[in-house]
Parts: sequence; structure tokens; C-alpha cells
Amino acid sequence: MTNKLLLTGLLVGGSLLAYGQDEKIDMATMDKIRQEGMQKSQVMETAFYLTDVNGPRIQGPGYMNAANYAKGKLAGYGLQNSRLESWGDWGKGWNVERCYFAMTAPYYKSMIAVPRAWSGSTNKLQTADILFITDTDTMALESYKGKLKNKIILMDQTYKVSPSFKADADRYTEEELQKMASAEAPRGSGGQRGGAGGDSTMRRMMQTMRTRNVFNQKMRKMAKTEGAVGILNSTQTSKDGTLFVSGDYANAALGAVPDDLADLSISAEDYMMLCRLMKAKVPVKLEVDVKTKFFADDIKGYNVLAEIPGTDPKLKEEVVMLGAHLDSWHAATGATDNAAGSAVMMEAVRILKAVGAKPRRTIRIALWSGEEQGLFGSRNYVTNHLVDAKTSKLTKDGENISAYFNVDNGTGKIRGIYLQGNVAAGPIFTQWLKPFNDLGATTVTAQNTGGTDHQSFDRVGVPGFQFIQDRIEYNTRTHHTNMDTYDHLQPDDLKQAATVVAAFVYNAAMRDQKIPVKEPVTAQQSNR
Amino acid sequence: MTNKLLLTGLLVGGSLLAYGQDEKIDMATMDKIRQEGMQKSQVMETAFYLTDVNGPRIQGPGYMNAANYAKGKLAGYGLQNSRLESWGDWGKGWNVERCYFAMTAPYYKSMIAVPRAWSGSTNKLQTADILFITDTDTMALESYKGKLKNKIILMDQTYKVSPSFKADADRYTEEELQKMASAEAPRGSGGQRGGAGGDSTMRRMMQTMRTRNVFNQKMRKMAKTEGAVGILNSTQTSKDGTLFVSGDYANAALGAVPDDLADLSISAEDYMMLCRLMKAKVPVKLEVDVKTKFFADDIKGYNVLAEIPGTDPKLKEEVVMLGAHLDSWHAATGATDNAAGSAVMMEAVRILKAVGAKPRRTIRIALWSGEEQGLFGSRNYVTNHLVDAKTSKLTKDGENISAYFNVDNGTGKIRGIYLQGNVAAGPIFTQWLKPFNDLGATTVTAQNTGGTDHQSFDRVGVPGFQFIQDRIEYNTRTHHTNMDTYDHLQPDDLKQAATVVAAFVYNAAMRDQKIPVKEPVTAQQSNR
Repeated sequence: MTNKLLLTGLLVGGSLLAYGQDEKIDMATMDKIRQEGMQKSQVMETAFYLTDVNGPRIQGPGYMNAANYAKGKLAGYGLQNSRLESWGDWGKGWNVERCYFAMTAPYYKSMIAVPRAWSGSTNKLQTADILFITDTDTMALESYKGKLKNKIILMDQTYKVSPSFKADADRYTEEELQKMASAEAPRGSGGQRGGAGGDSTMRRMMQTMRTRNVFNQKMRKMAKTEGAVGILNSTQTSKDGTLFVSGDYANAALGAVPDDLADLSISAEDYMMLCRLMKAKVPVKLEVDVKTKFFADDIKGYNVLAEIPGTDPKLKEEVVMLGAHLDSWHAATGATDNAAGSAVMMEAVRILKAVGAKPRRTIRIALWSGEEQGLFGSRNYVTNHLVDAKTSKLTKDGENISAYFNVDNGTGKIRGIYLQGNVAAGPIFTQWLKPFNDLGATTVTAQNTGGTDHQSFDRVGVPGFQFIQDRIEYNTRTHHTNMDTYDHLQPDDLKQAATVVAAFVYNAAMRDQKIPVKEPVTAQQSNR
Repeated sequence: MTNKLLLTGLLVGGSLLAYGQDEKIDMATMDKIRQEGMQKSQVMETAFYLTDVNGPRIQGPGYMNAANYAKGKLAGYGLQNSRLESWGDWGKGWNVERCYFAMTAPYYKSMIAVPRAWSGSTNKLQTADILFITDTDTMALESYKGKLKNKIILMDQTYKVSPSFKADADRYTEEELQKMASAEAPRGSGGQRGGAGGDSTMRRMMQTMRTRNVFNQKMRKMAKTEGAVGILNSTQTSKDGTLFVSGDYANAALGAVPDDLADLSISAEDYMMLCRLMKAKVPVKLEVDVKTKFFADDIKGYNVLAEIPGTDPKLKEEVVMLGAHLDSWHAATGATDNAAGSAVMMEAVRILKAVGAKPRRTIRIALWSGEEQGLFGSRNYVTNHLVDAKTSKLTKDGENISAYFNVDNGTGKIRGIYLQGNVAAGPIFTQWLKPFNDLGATTVTAQNTGGTDHQSFDRVGVPGFQFIQDRIEYNTRTHHTNMDTYDHLQPDDLKQAATVVAAFVYNAAMRDQKIPVKEPVTAQQSNR
């Protein structure tokens, strides 16, 4: 019903309609945005370039090529001051120049393999036996001393590969959305609890990673000292040919010397087969050829930034930001994580330029780097520009940010937005969503979500939001996998997402007031 | 309810219980079979050897090693006359000794690739450009003449890679089983219609394959003449890292000379990426290293056969057969197609020996070769032993086969049996299933199923049956894929299947009469 009324509103066009109590929405512009976003989309061309043409966008030439492409594209759309801006030292860049891995005895089997990020090289095709490590205790590693030379290291694991009786892909059901809509705000603010993550989730993940790394680092040190050829890794979810691969970035530290050790992710099936053959005392031979390259010529990290200048003399110093991380892991071309978000944000500003939007506030797009290793690009942007290092309070520039909108949950269309505990923004966003309810964007939840760049803003008291997106196959097939490729993008979803984002950004730039801030709860947060 | 009564019957044991009108079932032996099959199973050890240890079982050393293992194992169980029996000339054996494929420009990406069966070699690591063929008409190939040297050939395709909103794996629902149970028998007999296949389905498939091959064979001829490096293939379903790979076996013909052409299957995602890059005129470089080997030292095809001799002087000339094809495609280790069926059948006879069964009729196990290329092993067994070439009638040996039972539908447990139109066998099998109803084996359907070795028997009038098995992820992830590996086997399902098969074979061997035959409908069929 509402949808039909809205469509009529859209067709009439031109008038300022008021939904609810106070939000004035420029329906003529909403209509133009929708026409441009849904009918004349360029989002897939952008995604094609960022993925198929550019390749993985991990720190190094892969990221820099994409960043320069985006800079040029944004300038081409007519944005001002399109630029790469260094946020500080990142570390060495890296990429893969060859990866081949196979079993040659008891029979030949080439295996799906991806070097973990910042893996070293084998320097040539090497043939190797397995050193099978059945201990998991760091002390017990001592007993393997002197046995690692020319070996490929395999640690005993018990991954259980199970068939999927649940579909890889799904969309939010109405029930799920209603549950999210009626959820209470998390206690306190700033992403400490609830939702799909938050800082505490990230801290736990990083703690687990560190614990696991103690064993791995000791083994790696022994392996390097003794001249091992490589180390094999897998995860229980790496099945059916889909490998989940990320990497430790210790090797990217400024002074680190690349080692001659291939750090290889393989499938759980192949991993378990090797374990079973070892336990059955079947002689196994492997061959491996991994060549990676480290780049130390420019160790800085760069974000891409560009603006549509504000037109209202009183408001143009204020800024509405939209952003997404442009970097990716390397096992594929990071299509859903996060060429999707980057292409959507680029498309959103393209739409705004195409419809001739004259925003009162300045609109700034940011494409971040180093998100995958810890939100480096956005955190440092916030530190460098928005927070006073001495007082920990927001700078004038920080105070001037009305809101930051982020997209980083894959290829799914927008179903609504996480308030991140900022309940005062709820009624506003509810009204902004109405013209797009018929496209599936309906839900405002007080809940938090975590694990991406809006947190860098939220944690210092700048309103930062991430949209709710349909999951599609993000958690099963694409997120940090070798299958995160262009073909896993859903064109219609991305068109919708860019349309909704363009509308949100436009509304935020036109609104009389900035987006409300949450009640400050920590000393670090601003009291504006 | 029935299940509880049955369990009581099993606990009492020892007596001959009569279900329905006439089937006498030795419940003490059923109980022993169940105990041995479900509690002391060796089916996964057998499957481990056939897959992880042995590797792919395509014609050549891969198949012969597995056949010799099975022969030894069956003799070890105490079966008589365990043997490899040649059924005639198959053609050259083949295997893969190296496979590496990657894109090196515009950036590096190693790709999941599997040579199609009987692919040639590149002889060394070769770097190559793509020749992109946008025509599909055989005549239009002329325009590419003179352009193939040192090229890798890519034909324009429009595969749509879609996320799966349906689970990869499932089991038969009660509704599905009831529908199968109430289905009418197909008109006529002998697998001409209905079910999951039948001879007509196979004929259609082979016709389609031949049509496609006309274009491919012409292109291959040009490619070979001009010195191309390779040809790329894919299928729309080859996604998420799961590749569906089989192969043409023209190259296995007796006199064929292997060519210097790599015939490579890659994923739909990689295939489509290459097509998109070609269309966008982005320069692409590939590197490929494929080494395959042809074996002409023994071109014969061999089945594995062994017996448990009958003990009833009047019936021991009669034979109950159980079988499964032991051969596989080569992209993985053919775990669900059909190490599963082979291991189940080997386990079934092991169970019978372990429980000290003294069958009245002789029980013969057959593990077939060349099933994947057209039921060669079973067809020729039937031709060589069971049919008189001159009269097209069954021989004495053919008349003596009471029934042939087959398992070749993956790793799923047995849910019942296809009558293949032999409705007279229905009431018998319904009663035989009763002691295993509580294990999910309940359904007798008059329907046909096709595509495997029971058809070789059914088509000449020997009662041939295939069991109904839960699909699990057979059609989505394992059937003819690079993911058909040990970890995709379901141990509990295979234990159940071996238990049910052992019971059926035992009951068939003990029954006073042979299994009824269908009404003869063709001149080729027997009129016994």
C-alpha cells in the first residue's frame, strides 16, 4: 500500500513531501536518483575494472592500481580534489607471481592452493616429503628439531567436511528484519556489543589469532632456520574448492626480511587426505613452486578521497561522508569484499553528479586501504583529521562530519541500516528509507554491527553507520575466499544499493541539521 | 510401530518370520548381518584405499591398481576364484602427470584446472596468448585458419554463475518416497522411460555429445595441425571451485596418436573472466604445463569377479549377482562415483562371509570397468556370458542369474529399490526391506532408473535392480567433479547401504524360487 502511494508521489514528482514529523524529502531528486541508479547504472563496469581487470587489491601494486583507477574515475565523474592521501606507514607490499602445488606420490594430484598473504617463496620447483607434526604444544616442537630441512610441514588436524543441508545463499526474511527492527539499542554506545560483531568480537578474533600464532611463529622460525620448503594450512570451511585464505602480516613489517618458506592454504579435503595418508604410513611426495614478491619502494598506505563541494555558504564546511574499503585479500579479486562496496559508493556519487545534485553540505567519498588487517586506512584518517591527539576530542573537522555511511557486507541489496546505538537517528532514517521500501530497503535497527570502517568513526563519536545487506553467499562462498570473483556479484542488488546510498547521502547533505550524535559514554568521545 | 515389532523380532532372533504372504526371512541372519554391517563395518577402510591411497580409477594403472587391490581383498574375505577377467579391448589407458594453469597478465592468477580425460600434453611450461572464438558455427571456423599457432583457444560462452538458494545436499522426503512408491510401472520394460534415466536418456546424452564434438573435433584438428597449445572448457555448474570434468575417449581408440594439445577444464568463473577480458580488449597472457601419459601396453578392459559358492546342490548353479562400477573419472578419486558403491558391495560380501552365511545359490560380486564411458564392463560381461550371440536369447548361464543388484548413486543410504518395471518383484522386496525400515530403507518403486550397470542386465531380460539412495550432494558437488573425494563420503550411510545389500543378496540366494522376470517385450529378450 505504502509503496503504491510512494510511486504516485514519485510520478507526481517535484514537491517536497514530508513523511512523519519533520523529514523533508526532495521527491523529485529521489525519483531522479532512482532512475539513474536503477536504469543507467555503471556499477558493474566499475566492479569489472576493480576485479577482473585490476586483480587482487592487497597492499602493493594491486591496491595502488585500483586506487589510481578510482581516483581517475571519481575525477571523471566531476568530483573535486580527487586524490590519494597517505595515512602513514603501512609496510611492504606483496603479491603472488606463481603458485603451483601437487602430490606426485602415491599418484599425481594437482591441488588447489593459495599462498597466505606475505608468504615467502620456494624460489623454484621443489620436490619434498612431508614432516607430519602430531603435537600441538609449543614445547613439543623441540622434538622435531633437525628434521625440517627440505620438508613440507603438515600439522595433524581433524577438520570435518560436511555436506551443506542449508543453502549457501539466502536473503533476510521478513521475520528476521522485524526482529532486527524491534531489537533494543545496545547498552552504552560505540559498537561494544550486539549485532554481527563490534570491537569486542574483533578483539577476541585477534586474541585467538595471536595465540595460534605463537605455535606457528615458533614452527616458522624452526622451519626457516633448518631450511624447510613450506607449511600447509587449511580451515574446516575450505571445502568444495572454496578456500578461505587471509594471512599474518608480520612479514609486512617495515624491517622484515621475506623468508624462503611457502605458507600455503589448501582445501580441507586435500589437507585431511594428506593427514590420513601420513597416519597410514603411505609414502607421499609433494612438489611446490611458489614465487611471491615484496615491495618496499613505497611502504605508505593510501586512501582515495574526493568531494562534491557543498553549495550552502552556511553548511558547506560540514561534510557528509560515504566510504568503503577498496583493499582486499588476495586469493581472488575481492569482488564482494569489497569491490562491491567500493563500486556502490563510486556509483552513488556518480549518480549524484549525473542528476545534477547541488548538496548544501560537502559530500566526501573515501575508499580505504588496509581494512582487512585492522581498519588501518579509516582509523588513521580519523586520527589524522578528526581527533585532537592531545585532548582526544574531536577537532573542528571532526565536529563538522555529519555522518559517515559505509558499505562492506557483500553483494546483497540494502535491506536497511544499523543505527549503532544511535537511536535518535532512527526516525530520520526510517523516513529516508520509505521511497525505497518497495526495493526491499525497510529496516532500521538500533543494533550494532562491526568489523568494518564505520567503527573508526563511531568509536570517536562521529555518527558512523553500516547498511544492512542481504547475505547472499557472503559467509559460505565469497568472504575472504578464492571464489570472491566478479561472477559472484549480483548486478540488481548492487544497483539498488548504490541508489539507496545516493539518496541517504543526498538527504544528509540537504538536511537542516546534522545527524544527531549518540550520548558520549567514554572519555575518548567528543562532547559536542 | 512396525519398527518396534521388528526390533522385538530381531531380539528374539533365530526364528523364520514370515512377512506378508510368502517371504520367509531368516531373522537370525538378518540380525547378524545388521550387527556386522552397522557395528563392525570396514566400508570406510575399503573406501580409503580405493580413493586416498589408490587415486583416480580411470582406464590405465589407476584402474588396474584398484582392481588388483579389490581382487586381493575379496580373496582375503574368503571368496572363491577372485579374479580379473578381460571383457575385450578397451583402448589406451591414460593418466595425468602434471597440470598447472595460470593467468600471468594483466596480473597473476593461478587457476583451478583439470585436463579432460585423454587430453594431450603441452610437453613443457608454455606461455600463450588467447585465441578468442566468438563463432559457434562449424563453417565459420575457417576464418580462424592460420591463427592458432601457440595459442590457447577460448570459445565465447555465456555461463551464468548463480548463488545457490537451494541446499547442495538433501535427503528424500517422506512425500517424495511415497510418490515413488505409488508411481505406476513404466509401459513396456527394460528401462525405456521414466526414472532418472534409462537407455533413451543415455542415447540423448551421447547424441548431444556427438553434435558438440563435431565442432570441437574440427577445431581440435585445426589446433593440432597449426600447433595450438591448448583448448579451454567449462560448464555452467563448475562454480565455487567445484569443476565438472569428464572427457571424450576418441583418443583412447586403439590406433589414436596422442596430440600435443592440452584440453583443459576450468571453472565457469575463470572462463567467464577470460571472456570478459577478451571482449574488453585487455591483453591476457596465460601459462600452462600439462603432462599426460597414454598406456598402450595392455589395452584390454578387466572386470573383477569373485564368488561365494552356493551350498544347495539343486540351486548352486544359480547365481545372485551384486555389482558396482569400480572405474571413475579422473578429476578426483571418484569417492561417491563409485568407490562408494564398490566399497559397499565389497563390504556386503565381507559381511556375508563374516556372519558365516551358507547361501543356497552362488553369490557373485562384479566390479566393472569402463562404466563411465558407456557401461563397457557390464555390457560385455553380459554379451560374453549371458547371451547367445546367434539367437540373442539368454544362455544357460544367463537363465541361471536370479538377479543383479547394483549400487551407483553416491554416498547416500539406501531408501529402497527401483523395480525397473518388474512389478512381480515388488511384494518380495517390500518384505525384504521391512527389517531395515527403521534405518530409512522403505520404498519399492515400479519406476526405472538409468545410467548404470543394472541396465546391461535388464536390457537382455535378466532382472537387474538399482537401489534408491539419498542424493546428499551427488548432483551438486561430487558426481564427475574434482571434489569427489573421501571426505564427501558419509560413513553411516555407507554402513547402512552395505547392510541392506548384504541382506538382499542373502535373501535372494536363500529363496526357493529365483526372482521373477519381467514379461518379455523385445526380440532381444529371453522368453524363459
